Amino acid sequence: MDAGFPRRTVVAAEVDGTVLGTAKMHPNHGGPASHVATASFMVDPRYGGKGVGRAIGEHVLAWARGAGYRAMQFNAVVETNTGAVALWRSLGFEVLATVPEAFNHPIHGYVGLHIMHRSLLRQIDS
Amino acid sequence: MDAGFPRRTVVAAEVDGTVLGTAKMHPNHGGPASHVATASFMVDPRYGGKGVGRAIGEHVLAWARGAGYRAMQFNAVVETNTGAVALWRSLGFEVLATVPEAFNHPIHGYVGLHIMHRSLLRQIDS
Repeated sequence: MDAGFPRRTVVAAEVDGTVLGTAKMHPNHGGPASHVATASFMVDPRYGGKGVGRAIGEHVLAWARGAGYRAMQFNAVVETNTGAVALWRSLGFEVLATVPEAFNHPIHGYVGLHIMHRSLLRQIDS
Repeated sequence: MDAGFPRRTVVAAEVDGTVLGTAKMHPNHGGPASHVATASFMVDPRYGGKGVGRAIGEHVLAWARGAGYRAMQFNAVVETNTGAVALWRSLGFEVLATVPEAFNHPIHGYVGLHIMHRSLLRQIDS
């Protein structure tokens, strides 16, 4: 149903095999909408703030573009996760919308989920 | 992972058993975001324009509200499907964003996908 757009999981690791983070990529919807990719990410908190997320994000964008995807969309970026929001903005994403009160944060209560998007038809480093 | 929010599939049928349409409902995301429902719908084209979609939609909203969901979100309403967009607007949904060129329409080419949303904390019939 995904019209040939591939799925992929990647792992970022140190030379000694320590896993720093992971990402998985796949079409956000099926059929005639499968040319928009989505991805989800995990970074080990012990290695936070060291550029692991950025390195994985850059790799994911380049991979998706090379695989023929036309855009990438994140469906649920917690608006209070300002580090993630800033990272994705710096990699060319914009907030298309914020779904109100869509995430029940353990500290902040109901907060919004950003839907973030970027085209892959222009240069990744722009 | 869905924190107790139920999934459900319903079928709309005539007394003689003719299936007119279906809907399935479930959390749009897991864990701390599972209080927002989503749903997908099919109506047999032979019974289009007879209010089947509206009847199913009204049922789905009432069910989701009764199940404790706080909102409902549709992730991919094709913007050229003006009948569907008008139906959901009449049932209280608004377009949060339109993902550009996210659907490859067989006639119109790349068109947008609306992300539509409504709160369930107010009256369903408002």
